[in-house]
Amino acid sequence: MFTNSLPKYSYLPTEALDVIHENSLKLLETLGLEFNHPEALDIWEKAGAEIVDREAGLIRIPRQLIETNIAKAPAEFQLYARNPKHSVIIGGNHQVMAPVYGPPFVSDRDNGRRGALLQDYQNFVKLAQMTPQIHNAGGTIVEPEDEPQETRHLDMVYSLLRYSDKTFMGSVTTPENANDTVEMAALVFGGREVIAQKPVAISLINVNSPRRYDTRMLDALIVYAKARQAVIVTPFILAGAMSPVALGGTLIQQNAEALAGLAFAQIINPGTPVVYGSFLSNTDMQSGSPCFGTPESAMGLFVSAQLARRYKLPFRSGGGLTSSKIPDGQAMYEATMGFWPTFLAGTNFVLHAAGWLESGLVASYEKFVLDVELLRMMEVFLRGIPLDEEGLALDALEEVGPGGHFLGAGHTMRHFREAFYRPLVSDVMNFERWQQKGSLSADQRANAIWKKWLADYQTPPMDPGLDEALQAYMKKRKAEINAG
Amino acid sequence: MFTNSLPKYSYLPTEALDVIHENSLKLLETLGLEFNHPEALDIWEKAGAEIVDREAGLIRIPRQLIETNIAKAPAEFQLYARNPKHSVIIGGNHQVMAPVYGPPFVSDRDNGRRGALLQDYQNFVKLAQMTPQIHNAGGTIVEPEDEPQETRHLDMVYSLLRYSDKTFMGSVTTPENANDTVEMAALVFGGREVIAQKPVAISLINVNSPRRYDTRMLDALIVYAKARQAVIVTPFILAGAMSPVALGGTLIQQNAEALAGLAFAQIINPGTPVVYGSFLSNTDMQSGSPCFGTPESAMGLFVSAQLARRYKLPFRSGGGLTSSKIPDGQAMYEATMGFWPTFLAGTNFVLHAAGWLESGLVASYEKFVLDVELLRMMEVFLRGIPLDEEGLALDALEEVGPGGHFLGAGHTMRHFREAFYRPLVSDVMNFERWQQKGSLSADQRANAIWKKWLADYQTPPMDPGLDEALQAYMKKRKAEINAG
Repeated sequence: MFTNSLPKYSYLPTEALDVIHENSLKLLETLGLEFNHPEALDIWEKAGAEIVDREAGLIRIPRQLIETNIAKAPAEFQLYARNPKHSVIIGGNHQVMAPVYGPPFVSDRDNGRRGALLQDYQNFVKLAQMTPQIHNAGGTIVEPEDEPQETRHLDMVYSLLRYSDKTFMGSVTTPENANDTVEMAALVFGGREVIAQKPVAISLINVNSPRRYDTRMLDALIVYAKARQAVIVTPFILAGAMSPVALGGTLIQQNAEALAGLAFAQIINPGTPVVYGSFLSNTDMQSGSPCFGTPESAMGLFVSAQLARRYKLPFRSGGGLTSSKIPDGQAMYEATMGFWPTFLAGTNFVLHAAGWLESGLVASYEKFVLDVELLRMMEVFLRGIPLDEEGLALDALEEVGPGGHFLGAGHTMRHFREAFYRPLVSDVMNFERWQQKGSLSADQRANAIWKKWLADYQTPPMDPGLDEALQAYMKKRKAEINAG
Repeated sequence: MFTNSLPKYSYLPTEALDVIHENSLKLLETLGLEFNHPEALDIWEKAGAEIVDREAGLIRIPRQLIETNIAKAPAEFQLYARNPKHSVIIGGNHQVMAPVYGPPFVSDRDNGRRGALLQDYQNFVKLAQMTPQIHNAGGTIVEPEDEPQETRHLDMVYSLLRYSDKTFMGSVTTPENANDTVEMAALVFGGREVIAQKPVAISLINVNSPRRYDTRMLDALIVYAKARQAVIVTPFILAGAMSPVALGGTLIQQNAEALAGLAFAQIINPGTPVVYGSFLSNTDMQSGSPCFGTPESAMGLFVSAQLARRYKLPFRSGGGLTSSKIPDGQAMYEATMGFWPTFLAGTNFVLHAAGWLESGLVASYEKFVLDVELLRMMEVFLRGIPLDEEGLALDALEEVGPGGHFLGAGHTMRHFREAFYRPLVSDVMNFERWQQKGSLSADQRANAIWKKWLADYQTPPMDPGLDEALQAYMKKRKAEINAG
């Protein structure tokens, strides 16, 4: 994971955060929101919330119920990986990167845009495993269309556990799928009791904005909270459609929605590791299309991070989002528009950190590599500027006279090998040399890189007995599911 | 110009700035630097600096000479434009954008990469004039190879004054050229005495790093300071070659160089408007190539801005720099890597804000448009989030129930027309629609946009007598220069 000890950027002053906070709590107390889930309603009722309409699932939540429960969530927590070197801390000054999540399509320069297959899914797991700047193997990296919808979560979770030894994300599609995730993780990490003490899966619970938690997401949230696995509670908001056309109102709504879900997880199982999530962009109000990498999403990210810090909760947002259809200039300025706020806000868990294309409909192999270039640059940016003796380089300043050059200075000789960022994809050659090498664009060069990574990939070791147990579990569950 | 009331980002703590400041002053006091110019040496000697080696131009500058003179420079100043609506303030919370500066080549998708012509020069003046987010017409936007080197500055200054009514940059190639700039500006703005009170030209004085002010640059600096026109004093540094391979030492050197030139301008003419400049990137230590849009340049920019704020001086740096040969993904992630620090640091004068390609060797028509997209996005980012009644949108939050949508809400109806960023180049359509429209990349769409801008361009009005006077001055000076 990255460690970010830089100052975190505050877009709004504290008094403005107070306004958002107060209005969020008021929204929960007066207008309320829906939890479309009988068990969830019982839990809320027992905790002291007001059931306004049981049929509709509408509840109102007193502010003290939010505040006391939010306070029970850990400010940071460890997420354990199969390889202990890849265990991470979620929260504080730490930043964990995970690949794109959700696309039904993949694309690359050789075969274009097409439906995602399990092979693609596994390829992305391998690319994430090969990338030091990616710290979590991912979850629904793509939706493999060649596997039946009812059982593909088994193949996906197995792929994450087998082809990666980094932390991973769980399935949230049904309570059974969430339970399969927990069971398979328990096989790998020593049982359900062990992982309840040492969480290994982190899962994405989206709010159906505005103000609705749907059955499917609550099912998954309840399973994971009871198993004490980490959940990221994320209102999914395209402002103008799922929230007001103003950022102020949007942040009030998002904050209310997130706080309700986070408090709910604490009511189920106090101390459950949770993450304050934000997925906030805006609608193009002329066409109705979703927009990404916009100034509004940058502003929203900074303020959402400020709110999460205020509540002393880990924060999820950011990544390299774009609505471009190809990994061109638009894709990369939009992605970079997202990465800067992601890092200056110290975002603790960054989904979509590599590979996102076409408004999240496509996982792009080339975009994955281009995003990794940005992660590598931000990694260097986080290092700070050492001002020790070698950092001040006073001997070099003395050695090299006016109009001279530093290439041969003693200080340069001592440090040039590790000095400055070394690009992965960027071409810094002159025009003639670039021409000689084929006048390749950045995405053409990226194409060669992901192929090399896949060729170099080595499966991390796994005890054969464990692998057999995982496969046996899959086989059993597939049979059960197929039997209906 | 932009107004940036957001908090400015501080990359280093104050104590670290103190270390850089102290070491810079010590460098000037002990090692000194070169001013390769007899008149400059006389000026320094009279002011109290120690002439170490008159032949070599080496001087040592006592710290109080730096500190007292820096204090005479205005913290901000107005720069007057031919159209008063385009006058700008340099300094404070203001940010002024200027196009790329210096390329001998141009490129566009139709005609590729080629030597720049006066027609290209004028095209870029027109594009800058057409772009609300560009506030200064530029200076050496390109070097037109079809005009003789000795007289082309006349055509360039004329083009700036004639085809634009925004502020502009002066010629710095010889003292005569600088004087021609002042004379032509005096014709337009009412005489040398008027412009001495109301500066109209801002000119770029580069330091020949390490620690050398060369004759040509000092010539120009002296002409402009005596005419009380604004100068940007900018060490031109690719760290590892022109400065130490460590950022700490590089910042010490840059700061010493900048302070010396800024103090010198104040000694010549106290109160002369000056700008603390930084052009700081790094060398690829394997190939020796210059790199742009790197993490080091972002770190350097933030700290340089902090130093300028410490000295209460306007700050110049930033822009959309890249070493890419084409306006592809690399060009745009590197450019965006530059724009974020540029804006979060509140950079007051931003050269290379649009059009820079190929390490500054090429002015690209398409890149100009793509950079303007970024400027437009940052312009929105600077606006902040209003939390007044319409910003909080409490009526919309009340109107739209759980699971509903906001597209038809009263608040949305009141605001959707001006809500959210409207892209210039970015395509937010879905895949099918994008395909129907020709599957165009961002640079292909940008190609159509600059052509439309040039087609729509209208020459700002100018009194025919003034135009004649400018042309007569050019004619006279060309005759004099050609006569040798």
